[in-house]
Amino acid sequence: MGKTRTSTEKELGVHFNLEPIFRPKSMVVVGISTKNYINPGTTTFLKNVFETNLGEKCYAVNPRGGEIEGQKIYREIKNLPEIPDIAVIAVQPNIAVFAIEECIFLGVKGLILISGGFAETGTKEGRKIQNQIAKMCLENNVPLIGPNCVGVFNPPYIDSIFLQSEKLVFPPKGNVSIVSQSGGILLDQFFLAFKSREIGVSSAVSVGNKAVINEVHMLEYYAEDKETDVISFYLEGFGPGEGRQFLESSKKTKKDIVIYSGGTTEASKSAIQSHTASIATNFEVARSAFKQYGILQPITEMEVLNYIKTYSVLASSKKPIRLDKRLSGKVAILSVSGGHGVVCSDLLHKYDLELVQFTEHEQEEMRARVTSTVADIGGFSNPIDITGAGTDADIIGVLDYLMQLEKVEIVLCIVVPYPPQISVQIGRRIAITARKYPTKPLVCFVPYIEKYDLIRESLELFHIPLSATVSETVQLAAAIRDKSRALLRLKKHK
Amino acid sequence: MGKTRTSTEKELGVHFNLEPIFRPKSMVVVGISTKNYINPGTTTFLKNVFETNLGEKCYAVNPRGGEIEGQKIYREIKNLPEIPDIAVIAVQPNIAVFAIEECIFLGVKGLILISGGFAETGTKEGRKIQNQIAKMCLENNVPLIGPNCVGVFNPPYIDSIFLQSEKLVFPPKGNVSIVSQSGGILLDQFFLAFKSREIGVSSAVSVGNKAVINEVHMLEYYAEDKETDVISFYLEGFGPGEGRQFLESSKKTKKDIVIYSGGTTEASKSAIQSHTASIATNFEVARSAFKQYGILQPITEMEVLNYIKTYSVLASSKKPIRLDKRLSGKVAILSVSGGHGVVCSDLLHKYDLELVQFTEHEQEEMRARVTSTVADIGGFSNPIDITGAGTDADIIGVLDYLMQLEKVEIVLCIVVPYPPQISVQIGRRIAITARKYPTKPLVCFVPYIEKYDLIRESLELFHIPLSATVSETVQLAAAIRDKSRALLRLKKHK
Repeated sequence: MGKTRTSTEKELGVHFNLEPIFRPKSMVVVGISTKNYINPGTTTFLKNVFETNLGEKCYAVNPRGGEIEGQKIYREIKNLPEIPDIAVIAVQPNIAVFAIEECIFLGVKGLILISGGFAETGTKEGRKIQNQIAKMCLENNVPLIGPNCVGVFNPPYIDSIFLQSEKLVFPPKGNVSIVSQSGGILLDQFFLAFKSREIGVSSAVSVGNKAVINEVHMLEYYAEDKETDVISFYLEGFGPGEGRQFLESSKKTKKDIVIYSGGTTEASKSAIQSHTASIATNFEVARSAFKQYGILQPITEMEVLNYIKTYSVLASSKKPIRLDKRLSGKVAILSVSGGHGVVCSDLLHKYDLELVQFTEHEQEEMRARVTSTVADIGGFSNPIDITGAGTDADIIGVLDYLMQLEKVEIVLCIVVPYPPQISVQIGRRIAITARKYPTKPLVCFVPYIEKYDLIRESLELFHIPLSATVSETVQLAAAIRDKSRALLRLKKHK
Repeated sequence: MGKTRTSTEKELGVHFNLEPIFRPKSMVVVGISTKNYINPGTTTFLKNVFETNLGEKCYAVNPRGGEIEGQKIYREIKNLPEIPDIAVIAVQPNIAVFAIEECIFLGVKGLILISGGFAETGTKEGRKIQNQIAKMCLENNVPLIGPNCVGVFNPPYIDSIFLQSEKLVFPPKGNVSIVSQSGGILLDQFFLAFKSREIGVSSAVSVGNKAVINEVHMLEYYAEDKETDVISFYLEGFGPGEGRQFLESSKKTKKDIVIYSGGTTEASKSAIQSHTASIATNFEVARSAFKQYGILQPITEMEVLNYIKTYSVLASSKKPIRLDKRLSGKVAILSVSGGHGVVCSDLLHKYDLELVQFTEHEQEEMRARVTSTVADIGGFSNPIDITGAGTDADIIGVLDYLMQLEKVEIVLCIVVPYPPQISVQIGRRIAITARKYPTKPLVCFVPYIEKYDLIRESLELFHIPLSATVSETVQLAAAIRDKSRALLRLKKHK
């Protein structure tokens, strides 16, 4: 791909300044109800007054004036005590266009248009108003998020999600940023799911119909953002020229880029049009291009979660695993439950992973490292079955052997802590053993129940990716293998 | 398939009386340590003394006598105050064979052999001892569970799982029985996972190497068991003749039969031999036979869980959904989040489900049932997007329409309760609406978080299958479609 910019790329206006939108010092919400305290605009206004640093620098506008929940409502934007950094617009399309015009005229630096009723309706009128707004913003270089979106989440600076916070579930603060074309997916498959797996978020944005700001702008923004290590997307379709630009922009960053794509089948194509006015991108065709550029594209909700979790954990480690070569996907499975080993082996094929074959000699080496009962009844071909008679020392003995064995690229350790002689110290002992081998990735399965949190937390402290099911264990390994390939491709493109 | 019994079938001895093993009035554990309180035999002994109804009718044997944790240890079985109903054998293979001989001689009615070291070791000696034990049991018509297993779980009568109870997670009491070739899978993918989704268990058995009692005996036992509605299996392979017998036996029951199979790939074949001494069955080839007999065979851990959950929920309802015709898999998706609708639509194809197409007239009918904002911005082609502006009444209005619409076979309702105007009453309102249509299945997605338990529980009270992710929602629908087909096949085979 050449370096010359096309007119489309110019229109994309990649040099919008998004800083005021993500860290506004003042904000106005246009579209406050004077009566309905759960109306979208009102909700956004009140939550930013009470829940963000904006506080009294968050203003409300309604031509009728008055007050809501004790807060003053101004009649016009120009009457505010100051020109606010940004405006959140929550009024009908035909009113929104005038509000935006006024904002731009007054020097507002950024816009979030949360209302629906634009291009996604499929009507000529809806698309016309959306284009008109986009044109104004592009001509004046004012970034606009939306329309048809929940906007920006970057506490404690701003939270334009127009739903009451107590109805939602929030992830902890962390190193993953999220760009979503769907507010619902953002709140559920990202926020709620992240919370359940303790994946931390730096900031998030729902881009909706992408009239002005799209995933390319967001990729460039998060590539520079110091608090982001992993950039994740839910996308339903690229606009014209955006796909190519996305690939080009991806070359500028070494951060992990993960794409979750909706609208990959015939069934959902019409749904996408009415949801975010997108023309469905053929993400299965795009897959090979993404791969070439080191962009990761897991498929199911669980895979998305496990890929992002893996990269978040690996990136946040002060002593990260050094993935210095291309991993082909040769794994060793270590378990105290033979059944888990069998089920895990069955799943490898799906993710293009394979079991390393151990020689007789290697099996004897492992057998020599375990207690006599386990030496007698355990299985030391791959997958390794320590059996329910196993002790902590048996697991550690074999794990240590596997970690140093060149032919094993990734170790999958299935820590089912039910056997009598497995202690709650097993997590820490595994973690310390793993730390000795800084270029050999290890992933662990640990039951996600409070009873075994002590094991889980000791492994988390050492930044070892963890799973709650056998399927997920395999996904973690696939994520690491894919990352090693992505790193290699990035090098090639530099 | 003919009706004549082969000699293999005779050897299978389908008429073993398993009642003493599942509801013993007295029990002896052979293989108690006099010192090690976490040794498998000792653990089993102590837990049955203190945690089951057996209490003082649970006896311990070790030739050295003495006591452990204040409990008397007898030197020989014949010295016990009574001949116990059953014996749990937890000694090495070469000792086990004599203990079993003595038990049979004394008139013990059932045996559970938990020790490993038999055919699964792959040694001639191991297989020989196992065969010798099996022969004794068959000749004397004494049922034996195992070897190489955790045995029987049927509280409050018996629990031979030789791991301390506090290390495990137990499901609630319910209507699902479990037969597993792996103790680890039983404890983790069944017990722990069931607990997380509140699936109830009637009783469970880990059959290990299946020297005498196999999945056919267990199928026949649970087919008659009044407390079992759903019979679930984890299998790694059928023995000679067992597959055919399993199919024949399945015809005698209308209960749901669900098989989770391990060892479906080349990768795990050797693992299976050393795990449970099974020759891997080609479960993918068996799939068509299972299908023909109405036996359900989900693949992943999540699918297994969701299939079993669906059948457990439907069977436990006093007013069950009447699946009186073969469902082809035409579904309607109803959501307040467009993104969820898109992702859900994408997944249908994988499970051979499809979106019903609505006519313009039908879409207008739905539009007429919602508030004006939703009528303006909502999408009423399938998947239906009520949008975040939706209210409880909007969902109910459209749901009621879909439930009565003949062309819709199954309704998938994605209850993302984040929008401001969706209340916690939505669960009960959906449930009451569903109840009006006793032949139309409905499945619902509800976030699995305490905050929304009130919604979840109201739906559970009405026996509506629930999921926690979009993928699972589709799996619930597939489970219902598959059940309707299974019912039809059962009729044909009668």
